[in-house]
Amino acid sequence: MAHLNEIKLDGEVVFQGKILRVERDRVKLEDDTEAFREVVRHSGGVCVLAVTEQDEILFVKQFRYPHAQVTMEIPAGKLEYGENPEECGKRELLEECGCTAEKFAYMGKLFPTPAYDSEVIRIYLAEGLHFGNQSLDEDEFLDVEKIPFERAVEMVLHDEIPDSKSQIAILKYAVIRQNQA
Amino acid sequence: MAHLNEIKLDGEVVFQGKILRVERDRVKLEDDTEAFREVVRHSGGVCVLAVTEQDEILFVKQFRYPHAQVTMEIPAGKLEYGENPEECGKRELLEECGCTAEKFAYMGKLFPTPAYDSEVIRIYLAEGLHFGNQSLDEDEFLDVEKIPFERAVEMVLHDEIPDSKSQIAILKYAVIRQNQA
Repeated sequence: MAHLNEIKLDGEVVFQGKILRVERDRVKLEDDTEAFREVVRHSGGVCVLAVTEQDEILFVKQFRYPHAQVTMEIPAGKLEYGENPEECGKRELLEECGCTAEKFAYMGKLFPTPAYDSEVIRIYLAEGLHFGNQSLDEDEFLDVEKIPFERAVEMVLHDEIPDSKSQIAILKYAVIRQNQA
Repeated sequence: MAHLNEIKLDGEVVFQGKILRVERDRVKLEDDTEAFREVVRHSGGVCVLAVTEQDEILFVKQFRYPHAQVTMEIPAGKLEYGENPEECGKRELLEECGCTAEKFAYMGKLFPTPAYDSEVIRIYLAEGLHFGNQSLDEDEFLDVEKIPFERAVEMVLHDEIPDSKSQIAILKYAVIRQNQA
């Protein structure tokens, strides 16, 4: 076996839900011993750092059941199977914030938790915003807030925005802007 | 029901693994309708941004089975139940990199994927490093690399470090340093 490699021997789907599939695989390690890997399979996600003409960031406030608390996150959503990530980002921005964008640019990707989850989230920067009406999913409730960019950076630094994708998008944009200044 | 709240009505554990428990809960939404929430329960994690005297960052290169690729991540690990997060960070830094630190400071937390996962990862900054020997778990294989801090920031900006906790730790430290400059 090659160094830093693992090969699937066999596995089973232990849960097939609406948004998650969970697998338990038996793998061969590089020293030819065996181990089990528990893996959450997810279709992937997209998030959008949407910046207004007044240099504000759009946030959605929503209840996050796993943490039993309301979080501030940038608009985001799950990729439908086969959906183009950029189209997904535009769709979520429109559904959650009632917003379209003249400019939409790829900013990078993240693996939220690569040890046990296959999800990949892609980040887009949206500028030149035009506002209309929200159209949420039937089990989705959220409020939209605009926060000045510099305040959003402070909130990340002060541990007030725990969501990983939101932290990365805001901090990355801050470093890019500082590099350009 | 209050705005932006959900209440558990009942639920079942659909998978109990070694590192993950998966639950499927029936919840009441704010408009009194019902929905199901699929939730991954995880004990939480800790990661460490370890900075050498030469302003290098310690990385571990390891195979990540869910993504079937080798990733560059800062040292990290899973909280044992009841373990103090700071002690966990020190333990992982020692196990993965053979390293102790004179200074160990909290840098913030992240929810990797708050829509469906309860995991919270805490970030620590480690400085004043002393190097000894790795002591890895029996199913753990990884290489340690040192990368100059400015190069690590470039790697994040160029989408070469997908891991969320590593991106956040590096970008946050970059913004803090730029603010102090």
